[in-house]
Amino acid sequence: MTTSAAQRRERARAEYNAFLAVCPSHQLLARVSDKWVTLILSALGSGGDCAGEPGAMRYSELSRLLAGVSQKMLTQTLRSLERDGLVTRTVTPTVPVTVTYALTDLGLSLQHTMRALKSWAETNMDDVFDNRATYDERVG
Amino acid sequence: MTTSAAQRRERARAEYNAFLAVCPSHQLLARVSDKWVTLILSALGSGGDCAGEPGAMRYSELSRLLAGVSQKMLTQTLRSLERDGLVTRTVTPTVPVTVTYALTDLGLSLQHTMRALKSWAETNMDDVFDNRATYDERVG
Repeated sequence: MTTSAAQRRERARAEYNAFLAVCPSHQLLARVSDKWVTLILSALGSGGDCAGEPGAMRYSELSRLLAGVSQKMLTQTLRSLERDGLVTRTVTPTVPVTVTYALTDLGLSLQHTMRALKSWAETNMDDVFDNRATYDERVG
Repeated sequence: MTTSAAQRRERARAEYNAFLAVCPSHQLLARVSDKWVTLILSALGSGGDCAGEPGAMRYSELSRLLAGVSQKMLTQTLRSLERDGLVTRTVTPTVPVTVTYALTDLGLSLQHTMRALKSWAETNMDDVFDNRATYDERVG
């Protein structure tokens, strides 16, 4: 008897519990609960086509869009996303070589959530400023 | 002329850009892109009533549910969530005192996203394991 992808997913959800620090899904949650992961997954797919892949972006484009990210941090985060299977890395033998990143289906399955997180921060910034001022006044 | 909450939100979304490290919303995104924030916001509202507030949880309950969190980390994260206006902290003068936390409307507006993130990690853990094995074999 074969199990469908949906059945497998249902079982996985039942078996893993990210509340528990010893559960591997806790470590996976820790890895994706990261501002650079949120921003990279939000960015990919937002641009135009690159190397024929819809939503793919060059390393240099990502680096420009995520103003403030260090080369080391961007490279490390992209490598970990590639290893986990959320992005693909394509090297085109131009001079100099072109390196592009695109979302896999798994990466795509997280993109909506990541964009919601980014959008939430932008939308509610003013409310949070107000709340902080009120708190600081109350606590003294 | 008064501006509605919706208009204010729309303007805020237009003014802030979390891609930019210098934008305050980037720091807010960094703060909520945190595994303990994800787990606390996922947890609150999942339990029963506490002190008459639906979904409120005692500090001790949260501490038990988030197995592995240090007291210092839990206290710091809750204080920052309270200051930002995502949770309320209620002290009831029992012996010993009971401290309960509940989501505000702002916290509630992020809860769905946080639960989606936690659920994503639990649902896709097996796929990520497979992807890592494939990557490690390929890269060697």
